Amino acid sequence: MKRPCLDITRREEFSAAHRLHNPALSEEENRRLYGICNNKNGHGHNYALEVTVRGSVPEGTGMVMDLNRLMVILREEVIDAVDHKHLNLDVPFLTGIIPTAENVAVALWKRLEPRIQAFEGARLQRVRLYESRNNFVDYQGETL
Amino acid sequence: MKRPCLDITRREEFSAAHRLHNPALSEEENRRLYGICNNKNGHGHNYALEVTVRGSVPEGTGMVMDLNRLMVILREEVIDAVDHKHLNLDVPFLTGIIPTAENVAVALWKRLEPRIQAFEGARLQRVRLYESRNNFVDYQGETL
Amino acid sequence: MKRPCLDITRREEFSAAHRLHNPALSEEENRRLYGICNNKNGHGHNYALEVTVRGSVPEGTGMVMDLNRLMVILREEVIDAVDHKHLNLDVPFLTGIIPTAENVAVALWKRLEPRIQAFEGARLQRVRLYESRNNFVDYQGETL
Amino acid sequence: MKRPCLDITRREEFSAAHRLHNPALSEEENRRLYGICNNKNGHGHNYALEVTVRGSVPEGTGMVMDLNRLMVILREEVIDAVDHKHLNLDVPFLTGIIPTAENVAVALWKRLEPRIQAFEGARLQRVRLYESRNNFVDYQGETL
Amino acid sequence: MKRPCLDITRREEFSAAHRLHNPALSEEENRRLYGICNNKNGHGHNYALEVTVRGSVPEGTGMVMDLNRLMVILREEVIDAVDHKHLNLDVPFLTGIIPTAENVAVALWKRLEPRIQAFEGARLQRVRLYESRNNFVDYQGETL
Amino acid sequence: MKRPCLDITRREEFSAAHRLHNPALSEEENRRLYGICNNKNGHGHNYALEVTVRGSVPEGTGMVMDLNRLMVILREEVIDAVDHKHLNLDVPFLTGIIPTAENVAVALWKRLEPRIQAFEGARLQRVRLYESRNNFVDYQGETL
Repeated sequence: MKRPCLDITRREEFSAAHRLHNPALSEEENRRLYGICNNKNGHGHNYALEVTVRGSVPEGTGMVMDLNRLMVILREEVIDAVDHKHLNLDVPFLTGIIPTAENVAVALWKRLEPRIQAFEGARLQRVRLYESRNNFVDYQGETL
Repeated sequence: MKRPCLDITRREEFSAAHRLHNPALSEEENRRLYGICNNKNGHGHNYALEVTVRGSVPEGTGMVMDLNRLMVILREEVIDAVDHKHLNLDVPFLTGIIPTAENVAVALWKRLEPRIQAFEGARLQRVRLYESRNNFVDYQGETL
Repeated sequence: MKRPCLDITRREEFSAAHRLHNPALSEEENRRLYGICNNKNGHGHNYALEVTVRGSVPEGTGMVMDLNRLMVILREEVIDAVDHKHLNLDVPFLTGIIPTAENVAVALWKRLEPRIQAFEGARLQRVRLYESRNNFVDYQGETL
Repeated sequence: MKRPCLDITRREEFSAAHRLHNPALSEEENRRLYGICNNKNGHGHNYALEVTVRGSVPEGTGMVMDLNRLMVILREEVIDAVDHKHLNLDVPFLTGIIPTAENVAVALWKRLEPRIQAFEGARLQRVRLYESRNNFVDYQGETL
Repeated sequence: MKRPCLDITRREEFSAAHRLHNPALSEEENRRLYGICNNKNGHGHNYALEVTVRGSVPEGTGMVMDLNRLMVILREEVIDAVDHKHLNLDVPFLTGIIPTAENVAVALWKRLEPRIQAFEGARLQRVRLYESRNNFVDYQGETL
Repeated sequence: MKRPCLDITRREEFSAAHRLHNPALSEEENRRLYGICNNKNGHGHNYALEVTVRGSVPEGTGMVMDLNRLMVILREEVIDAVDHKHLNLDVPFLTGIIPTAENVAVALWKRLEPRIQAFEGARLQRVRLYESRNNFVDYQGETL
């Protein structure tokens, strides 16, 4: 018999510095491209990460996946690595990546997907990353 | 002539106690499955419910459905029944259901759908239930 | 090679007055249809507008589209025209439109779409308009 | 025996239109004084009102004053009169008052104080009025 | 030389169930006094606790008191004891206390004060307890 | 005749990087004192600044001080200098100051006070600085 299929979402926050700068471009091109986000010494944000997992709900548990286990995965794979860090300099899995919200969201997807896939019947549905209340990006694993 | 089709959403909040416990399992299995949410005397939340209705917009009214009428339906069908109540003990339409966010969202969908269907051209699109700012689930009527 | 495709969202706020009233209907019909929102002298809101743009992420920039440029477009096309204004009386592109959240969202979509289309590889994905924390509508350009 | 003395606060929200305009001044002076808030047709806000009552806590009840009763007073004295209204035109107790946040807060204090004084051992401590998340005023009954 | 004196505040959240009921009163008196908060099986909230400490700022550290140490104290003394618990049944330091927001705030003050006093030059200034966004109480150690 | 005296508050936000580090102390002492906030490459926050001005309300204007003028002062004196900057490296008025929330709040007070004093009848009442929703400090110009 079919079971209801739902999305569950866990939100975590972290504080980090970053700088938007493409070393392949000139200073002037970087300034035009990234504006104040290109400031040489960097700036920072209280980021918020919302990770959504989709799956059916077994009758015995009533849960797609234990939200506390999802919380632990987010902390182990993401928060411990990025909180109170400089995204350009301190985070191995972001090395060589310009830390725009888009690029960070894609990197977090890659990091989280194998951990979520390990749960039978669950799959990673969306990574939303807020740089602030007014700016955020969503990645759903799609390419174009 | 075709008319624009939109989603409208109304948010309501309620405060309730609950306990996650499956009587078919042992104490130890419940504790492992639900962790601190299995606390014998229960705990509680300020839940937030966001209900989304989809429909086209008639030119005469400019509304998919009066949001105040949606508010009244949510209060009659849900808020009056669950606010300041214990979800395991006080709510007839949750009897026998382990009140995880997933199971409650599905139960609220079933309760709201016939009321929304009564409005021509409108259909229930999504039920989102927040247990806290950091944990929420979405149900869109799908099964797997 | 395919590139990741993401949604980016920018949020802006504005304060405006409005009145829901259809001149083709009688006073009594307007009152029944719009309730307190039909108040003769109008009322007002702190609206929040969230505009979502979808596109692939070029490797050189790491951005679907510069969020600051999106911010500028929203301010030029929308905020400057509606902030601290009366939506029924002061806004040329809303003339003759009953300013329900649905109708305003559709009007904003029409106004923003050509500006977004001018960016290669980007397209307008969603306009979300909050009248308050508890009432909001989403328009994705669909008709029915 | 002395009892602990606490402040309790209740928050309510309302949506209203207003216009800042002093009829004793010229058009130009009004424009310079109030800027965009002087817009002829008015604008509006989702106001939030936080009312604080101070008092000692009797052992029998554990409450300075029932927060639900405070909620009822706020709705009867304030919300019913101002929600979905135009503050310059529709509200008898604001007649002849320029509806700046300061003046509205003082008017609400005068309206609420006698109702709070009717509760033995309680007194009105503060009226906070938010025009938006970014602008708010506090009145504590002081004069200078 | 005198040093600047500031207030620092740390916010923590917890989820708990409670019931307002005075065993010295009749069922009817309890119902009249506490309304829906008297529901026999209890209800619950996502509480937020804001604790404020006042002190001067030594030049060497630039901190009244390490906010992370304050966070640890709050978790050890309060959050571990009340999170995902029933305030009437599971919390030793609330035994025999009607868990109104006022009474809980006073109990938390008593519990936290000796831990804060242990820091030279710091003193507990305020305990604020939110039952919801719309209801909160402040205790500053005063009696009347 | 006496006039009502109120507090008005304006909130502004900015994004900045910082590092807590006292060059007079050893690496180990810095690590023990500031914990993860001592990370060599810095981290960052979306700071929020709330500035409160107290004054009486003249009958002619109904305003303690134009909140838009206060907004302009905050942007000129603070936001333009710190937004998208590194507080240790890019901000002249913070040179040589360990940028704890306490020290930054005191520096902002000193910077803002002469601008506010220029308004007759108004005085700076409080500077509140949020590093995050969970950590904030208040400075009211006091020394100890």
